[in-house]
Amino acid sequence: MDLAPVAAQLLLKVRQERPLVHNITNWVVTNVTANAALALGASPVMAHAQEEVEELASVSRALVLNIGTLTPAVLEAMMLAGRAANAAGRPVVLDPVGYGATALRTQATKSILKEVKVDVLRGNPAEIAGIGGLSASIKGVDSGATAHPGAVIARRVAADYRLVAAVTGATDYISDGRRLARVENGHPWLTLVTGTGCMATLAVAVFAAVEPDYLKAAACALACYGIAAELAAGTSLGPGTFGASLLDRLYLLQPEEVAQRARVTLYSGGSEEA
Amino acid sequence: MDLAPVAAQLLLKVRQERPLVHNITNWVVTNVTANAALALGASPVMAHAQEEVEELASVSRALVLNIGTLTPAVLEAMMLAGRAANAAGRPVVLDPVGYGATALRTQATKSILKEVKVDVLRGNPAEIAGIGGLSASIKGVDSGATAHPGAVIARRVAADYRLVAAVTGATDYISDGRRLARVENGHPWLTLVTGTGCMATLAVAVFAAVEPDYLKAAACALACYGIAAELAAGTSLGPGTFGASLLDRLYLLQPEEVAQRARVTLYSGGSEEA
Amino acid sequence: MDLAPVAAQLLLKVRQERPLVHNITNWVVTNVTANAALALGASPVMAHAQEEVEELASVSRALVLNIGTLTPAVLEAMMLAGRAANAAGRPVVLDPVGYGATALRTQATKSILKEVKVDVLRGNPAEIAGIGGLSASIKGVDSGATAHPGAVIARRVAADYRLVAAVTGATDYISDGRRLARVENGHPWLTLVTGTGCMATLAVAVFAAVEPDYLKAAACALACYGIAAELAAGTSLGPGTFGASLLDRLYLLQPEEVAQRARVTLYSGGSEEA
Repeated sequence: MDLAPVAAQLLLKVRQERPLVHNITNWVVTNVTANAALALGASPVMAHAQEEVEELASVSRALVLNIGTLTPAVLEAMMLAGRAANAAGRPVVLDPVGYGATALRTQATKSILKEVKVDVLRGNPAEIAGIGGLSASIKGVDSGATAHPGAVIARRVAADYRLVAAVTGATDYISDGRRLARVENGHPWLTLVTGTGCMATLAVAVFAAVEPDYLKAAACALACYGIAAELAAGTSLGPGTFGASLLDRLYLLQPEEVAQRARVTLYSGGSEEA
Repeated sequence: MDLAPVAAQLLLKVRQERPLVHNITNWVVTNVTANAALALGASPVMAHAQEEVEELASVSRALVLNIGTLTPAVLEAMMLAGRAANAAGRPVVLDPVGYGATALRTQATKSILKEVKVDVLRGNPAEIAGIGGLSASIKGVDSGATAHPGAVIARRVAADYRLVAAVTGATDYISDGRRLARVENGHPWLTLVTGTGCMATLAVAVFAAVEPDYLKAAACALACYGIAAELAAGTSLGPGTFGASLLDRLYLLQPEEVAQRARVTLYSGGSEEA
Repeated sequence: MDLAPVAAQLLLKVRQERPLVHNITNWVVTNVTANAALALGASPVMAHAQEEVEELASVSRALVLNIGTLTPAVLEAMMLAGRAANAAGRPVVLDPVGYGATALRTQATKSILKEVKVDVLRGNPAEIAGIGGLSASIKGVDSGATAHPGAVIARRVAADYRLVAAVTGATDYISDGRRLARVENGHPWLTLVTGTGCMATLAVAVFAAVEPDYLKAAACALACYGIAAELAAGTSLGPGTFGASLLDRLYLLQPEEVAQRARVTLYSGGSEEA
């Protein structure tokens, strides 16, 4: 099933509803993810103090937890915010940056997955494979080789943890354990700019704020984000101008353009491949 | 009274004196506000450790307190820095980001206003209205509707708290409780980039560093900033290139250009409107 | 001895080996230094939690310690990471941002230099002069006047602390106490963008990760960085577009271009000048 029309509709819905999205994220990407949210048409709030995250998570329409520069104090804030979002019925999107790179990150991810109902898990192949107990190598916070293809990793982890797993790379694979979606939009220059994975996670949260089928939301968000990257790369000289242009293109992105350019396919439970 | 010539003079004075401005601000905007200070011609120092903020605030010519991603530890640093700036006779500019959105932000703002002599308060209509006990709605950290016009909000809060209140929006209103200034420079794209409000606050602090009439300083700073935004928007494709161009234009801004383009008017105590 | 060919070779080596570089740096520059590392061809990891820095420093090929927005908790993390990098035999590069501006920064720098074997110290003339007990003035975190020329400062501090000292400015001087290198690449616009000193430090760490002669590594890194700045300035309107273009140019920089444009000279122990 071609999800391109759905992606176009959801982008329009984001623009109309301008959902408030709460981010507890890392030091490196606060600015660019807030800007990506604004460019997509959402309203970001960045806050990590334990004293206020429950209030903000309760009134926001989605919550992003990103462990990129985690400390124990921020982890505790994530737990509070995550439970508040759960109680309010809002989607929680987890980005396990550098899972497997350090004990802190591995244990924090496990703790969050245990204490918070995570709705969508977005990461690179090595991170998601690691969470699923599948072998992978990791180099710092960048993905290394994995023994399994992205589709297998996504499906396995989604089924094991009962969530939507989004494994992003040259091709993105998203699964809820039963269904599988594949996105073939994007551009290699996304690997040259820090925070582009975190921005993908943010996009997923923005779409999940307006679409309760989180598999579709995640796949369509990644398609829209990938299209913006393709368009940005076409007019950029290198990663610096690409970063600025990516925000331009997220802002300028039109539903019609998405309907035409999105390469996003949903496979039902039985039909395989992808 | 047309303040355009004053705005031009103050920009020149900033470029000549290159004032050191100490910022205790939020995680999201540290980079862009430091860059805005450099572009305007000032010398920024960003520091939030309780162990050093008094020293820096004492030698700086202005202090910015921005509660955007506040924690109790940073709030305590703000108190120390604020009192040190007061003791040194330097202007303190407060940006109550998200006042009303959480109890932490509301209480922190009240504590700062109580324990520190704040010279200028810069915020959006909902934030400043909230501080004045005037009804307003807020969505995350973005302004919602207010029951009163900006001029009324600015005047009321300025009088109540004995400071200069700068309420920014499509039109900016600045009051010291008696006089009122109005600025009609700016561009809607400022709402598409995170930190543009914080950069406006920074600009106000930079001008307050060189001009002891803080009402004039704030109004002229907002006019210059608004002109830079107008010029930047004219050559940008979207919010990403606009953000970069805004810094360019702050840097390239010439006093003559300000004298011509500034739409900034001062009303004395009696004459109303604005 | 002309080091231009060495600079070209080292840039190629960085691109081939893509070294992992661990950064414990300040709030202001996390994003831009990570992007500079990616643009040069390295793999950055930004992390400051005491719970994980030893693990990351142990597996990284270089460690950057930058005290720009230091707190005692982050200082403790720096100590842990620094000792871990020492144990693993990896180069430690220290950027003493604002040394002399506050007691916290001065004492932290001294503590790091005492408890960690620092391999390269990169700073502006006032910071490095201050560390060497040479008179200098400082304004916030920007360099003021120094009583001694950069070459003398670099040589003295390098000899006293038994490390490579890199004093950057209009001309950069790098010394190991015996030898001296001089770099004449760069552009005045580097002073208009926050974090450009921190990016220079990052570049030094990236090159030190692939070249054990840290004097050569530092000098060649600064030459490459300076060339990228020259090229970026040629096509930028102001500091905003320059910041984006600088990342583009670091990415696009070719070894052949470096061989032609680098103005980097090594003086052996006896021959003076520079």
